[in-house]
Amino acid sequence: MTIRPAVVLLSGGLDSTTCLAIARDMGYRPYALSFRYGQRHSLELDAARRVAAAFGVDEHVIVDIDLRTFGGSALTDEIDVPKDRDGAEIGNDNEIPVTYVPARNTIFLSFGLAWAEVLGAQDIFIGVNALDYSGYPDCRPEYIHAFEVMANLATAAGVQGRQMLTIHTPLIQLTKAQIIQRGLSLGVDYGLTLSCYDPAPDGTPCGACESCKLRAKGFAEAGVADPIVLASE
Amino acid sequence: MTIRPAVVLLSGGLDSTTCLAIARDMGYRPYALSFRYGQRHSLELDAARRVAAAFGVDEHVIVDIDLRTFGGSALTDEIDVPKDRDGAEIGNDNEIPVTYVPARNTIFLSFGLAWAEVLGAQDIFIGVNALDYSGYPDCRPEYIHAFEVMANLATAAGVQGRQMLTIHTPLIQLTKAQIIQRGLSLGVDYGLTLSCYDPAPDGTPCGACESCKLRAKGFAEAGVADPIVLASE
Repeated sequence: MTIRPAVVLLSGGLDSTTCLAIARDMGYRPYALSFRYGQRHSLELDAARRVAAAFGVDEHVIVDIDLRTFGGSALTDEIDVPKDRDGAEIGNDNEIPVTYVPARNTIFLSFGLAWAEVLGAQDIFIGVNALDYSGYPDCRPEYIHAFEVMANLATAAGVQGRQMLTIHTPLIQLTKAQIIQRGLSLGVDYGLTLSCYDPAPDGTPCGACESCKLRAKGFAEAGVADPIVLASE
Repeated sequence: MTIRPAVVLLSGGLDSTTCLAIARDMGYRPYALSFRYGQRHSLELDAARRVAAAFGVDEHVIVDIDLRTFGGSALTDEIDVPKDRDGAEIGNDNEIPVTYVPARNTIFLSFGLAWAEVLGAQDIFIGVNALDYSGYPDCRPEYIHAFEVMANLATAAGVQGRQMLTIHTPLIQLTKAQIIQRGLSLGVDYGLTLSCYDPAPDGTPCGACESCKLRAKGFAEAGVADPIVLASE
């Protein structure tokens, strides 16, 4: 069994938490990386802290970055998160949702790359998903592959041929239901996680945003109950 | 003459200032992007502000990021910047200098990508240099090309085929002397810039660090005097 270090991007949501469980199950020593990036609520970070603590990760770093500097998205601007969007629209290739944050995964993976280089880690885990991916361009396999190629040219270790970096995307071809089933088989407590884009101050999910709907659909298809109670219930 | 917007990474040093002059000369409307990244002195940012003001850029954004979170380099850790390193060692392919900051250009370009997407800009300028590049892996042409490929897969515009992003590296094959000559021909006042890794509190360069030595060698080979007075003079 390996005990190699790996950087795991952790938002505190369902996907990244499952990704962390998979990394640990593969025998990696996970280093959890979260971002305070001007999102409208910090409840997501509270969830990330709960998850990191529950997993007993070696280190959990929260990096401050301010994507509001550039504007451009509902998640960082002061405009309303869209509600009650028709589920059939979700995942349409030609429609980029307003909740898209410019270059977000590129920025997040870049910080992951910096930490991996300092740790001497050859592995980064990110819980992107190409099936239920909501139309975000930086969740596609071809994007992740291109980042990996770039990353291996960017670092001192890459130049010296000492190590090759791998970006792991264990969820990329799974449905939300399969992700949940995989996580449950690894003992994940989804009651710790938060998926909602617009929760109440006490952390209760709205049940109406795109992320809540994807999550509800996933639990329904997995045939299990979501341990989190929605505002609408 | 085009007036297309372009994001220009601006450290306030000699290279990025020349790069800004070239972008403007090519007819772009430059948006200057600098970073407060836990470097040991903020005099570099003062230089960036002077340069941006002198060029009358539309907007100059300084993004706060903290690379000290991960440690790993003399420029962000509390260790001494190496002095009086033999000039012959500089640029040796197999030696990564201690002043290397993990994934720095990848992080900087990622923020540039985010801003470009918000501005609708198709062009990013970065003053990297492959000849006098001091052994930094993320200054090589193959790295820049890989970033460009990745960036065009990362963005909404790329997915929709609306625009292709170009990373411009006008200095990449120039010697330091050629960079200086090019800048002077475009009217750059190098007295506004700061290259030193370890200046005095009043901004006077040390004259002994690797960056000061490269600059001095460049001015000497260009056959012109550096308008900045060194501490040792």
